[in-house]
Amino acid sequence: MKVGDVGEFGLIERLAALVGVAREGVVVGIGDDVAVLRAEGEAWLLATVDSQVEGVHFLREAMTPYQLGRKALAINVSDIAAMGGTPTYALISLVLPPDLEVAWVEELYRGLQAEAERSRVAVVGGNMARSSDGVVIDVALLGTVAQEEVLLRSGAQPGDRVLVTGTLGDSAAGLHLILHPEVAVPDADRAYLLDRHLTPTPRLAEARVIAQSRLATAMIDISDGLSSDVGHICKASHVGVRLWAERLPISDATCRVAERMGRPAWELALTGGEDYELCFTAPASAVPEVQRRVKEATRTPVVEVGEILPPEAGRWLVLPDGEEIPLTARGWQHF
Amino acid sequence: MKVGDVGEFGLIERLAALVGVAREGVVVGIGDDVAVLRAEGEAWLLATVDSQVEGVHFLREAMTPYQLGRKALAINVSDIAAMGGTPTYALISLVLPPDLEVAWVEELYRGLQAEAERSRVAVVGGNMARSSDGVVIDVALLGTVAQEEVLLRSGAQPGDRVLVTGTLGDSAAGLHLILHPEVAVPDADRAYLLDRHLTPTPRLAEARVIAQSRLATAMIDISDGLSSDVGHICKASHVGVRLWAERLPISDATCRVAERMGRPAWELALTGGEDYELCFTAPASAVPEVQRRVKEATRTPVVEVGEILPPEAGRWLVLPDGEEIPLTARGWQHF
Repeated sequence: MKVGDVGEFGLIERLAALVGVAREGVVVGIGDDVAVLRAEGEAWLLATVDSQVEGVHFLREAMTPYQLGRKALAINVSDIAAMGGTPTYALISLVLPPDLEVAWVEELYRGLQAEAERSRVAVVGGNMARSSDGVVIDVALLGTVAQEEVLLRSGAQPGDRVLVTGTLGDSAAGLHLILHPEVAVPDADRAYLLDRHLTPTPRLAEARVIAQSRLATAMIDISDGLSSDVGHICKASHVGVRLWAERLPISDATCRVAERMGRPAWELALTGGEDYELCFTAPASAVPEVQRRVKEATRTPVVEVGEILPPEAGRWLVLPDGEEIPLTARGWQHF
Repeated sequence: MKVGDVGEFGLIERLAALVGVAREGVVVGIGDDVAVLRAEGEAWLLATVDSQVEGVHFLREAMTPYQLGRKALAINVSDIAAMGGTPTYALISLVLPPDLEVAWVEELYRGLQAEAERSRVAVVGGNMARSSDGVVIDVALLGTVAQEEVLLRSGAQPGDRVLVTGTLGDSAAGLHLILHPEVAVPDADRAYLLDRHLTPTPRLAEARVIAQSRLATAMIDISDGLSSDVGHICKASHVGVRLWAERLPISDATCRVAERMGRPAWELALTGGEDYELCFTAPASAVPEVQRRVKEATRTPVVEVGEILPPEAGRWLVLPDGEEIPLTARGWQHF
C-alpha cells in the first residue's frame, strides 16, 4: 500500500497509533495542527510546523522569494492564532540546491522577517541542508496561550453556529489566475486575488479578540478548505454540521473569476483552501456579540455560515436552490 | 553568487544579519545549533531543528527506515544534550513521495518512537507534505535547561582543556564501509562501525553529568567533525586552540579501516563528523574530576585532546611527529 493510497489524514492516523506517551504534559498531541503543551508557568506552550515544497506548494517562477518567505511563516502564525495563541519564536529549516542564488535566499529571509515583525515573532535559529532537487522550507513556530483562552477543535456543541472571518475562495481564484494568466479579469481583481493567494495575512488580531471574548467553543484556520476544515472540528467535537452555500462570504472578484471558470462561486469558497481565514463555533446567543467585538477591534466581518448538529445528524450542505447534499471534504489533501 | 559558493556557514552569517530582534527573551538566537529562550518559569526553553535529506544525508537502500527514524531524532537529542539540557517534545515534518510504501513510513515512526522512549521525548505533532522527488525528514525538538547549567559555545577560556567523550572517526569509517562494501574487515568491526554510523547514540546521560558538575565552560556535539566543531567553540568564545592528533581517542576498528583506506586514523577522527560525541572545555584543574564523574555515572571515557589558547595564538594541530600545522575546519559543510 502506497502513501498516495491512504492519503494525508489516513497516514497521520496510522502514525499517531505508533506514538506512545513518553512524557507527561501533552494537552493536545499528534493529529492537530498545533501541539498544546504544559510548561513551567501558568500559560501553555504551543508548537507547530509546516512546510512549503517546491513544485507542490509553490513554483519558483510564479512567486518571488520575498512572498514565499512571508507565506511560509504566515501559515504557521495562522495555526497558532487559530488556537487563540500568540506566536513567539520561529526556527527555519531550509533544504536548498547548491546552484541557488544567494540573493534568492536573502530575499526569502527578508520576507520571513517582514512577517516576523508583523506578528512579533523572533526568528531564533534553524538548519540548512543541501537538496538534490528543489527547495523545501520548513518553519517550526512556538507560541503561548493562556489556559482559559485556548481554542481547540474539540469544543463545538450541537446548536452552536459556524462562523467565518473575511471572504472565502479568494486564494483559489488567485491560484487559478496564476495557472491561467489568459483569463480576462479587471486589473484590480487580479491584483487583489494574487495578493490573497501569494501574501496571506493570518487573522492574528481577530483570533485574539475571539479567544479573549471566551464566547467561542472551537476554532480552526481555513487552510485545506472550509469543507475539510469544518470536518476536522466535527470529527474532534463528535458533532454533525449543516452549512449554507448561499451564506458563504465571497468577494466580487472571486465571483467574477468563478463565472469565467464556469463554476459556482460557493464551490471555490467551500473547497478552495489557503484562505487562512478563521472558522469557529459559538452558541447562537453569542453570535451578535462576537461579531461586534471582532468588527470593532479589527473591522473584519464575521459571518454565520452554518450550524452544529448532533453527531447522528451527519454533515450537510444546503445548496442555493434549497437542496441538501452530504458535505464531503473535497478540500486540499496531500497525496 | 550561488549558495554553493558561500557555503553553509557563510550563508547562515548573511541570513542572521537580516533577522532583526522582534521579541525579547532570546538568550541565544540564530547561528547556534540550539536556540536558548527565556520562558515563563525559571528554566530556559531550548529549541532546535535538523533535517535528513534523501540522497544527501541518507540513501534509502543503505539504511532501514527504522534506523533512519532513530537517527533523525537522535541527532536533535544530541544538540539539546550538548547544551546541558533535557529534551522534551518533538515535531516531525515529513516530505514524502506519493508512491512510497506506507509500511516504510510506519517503520520510520517505530524508529523515531524507539529513540523518543530512550530519550524520554514525546512526539507531539508534525506535518506531512507531498514530495516531487525524495524523502525529507525534519525534526524540531524542544528541551529545557536550568539557567545555571546551560553550556554554550561561548564560555571557553584560554588555559581550558579540550575534552571529548567516547571515540572519534567511527561514523566516518562506517560510512566508508557502506560506500565500499568490498573493503575486507573483520565482521565484528563492520557491525560495530555500521552501528556507530547508522544508529548514533546521543550522549544524553554524559552531557547531564557534565552540565550538573558545573565544571565545564563550553560544550558542543561533534556532528560536523571535531576540527569544525571545535572551531565553532573558538569562534563563539573568541579564543584559539591547539589539538594533539596523537591524543584523539580512536577505536581499533576505525584504525583498521583507516589503514585499508591508506589514511592516518587521526584524520578520520579529526574531520569525520557524525560521531555525536561531546566536545567540551574545562579548566585544567577540573579535568580529573569531570573525567571521574562521567566515567562513574556512564562508564564513558573522557579524553583530553587539546588546550584553549588566547585568540591571537590562532588554531593549531600538532601532528604525531610533533610538527604543528594550522587547524582548518575540513569537517562536513553543506553545499
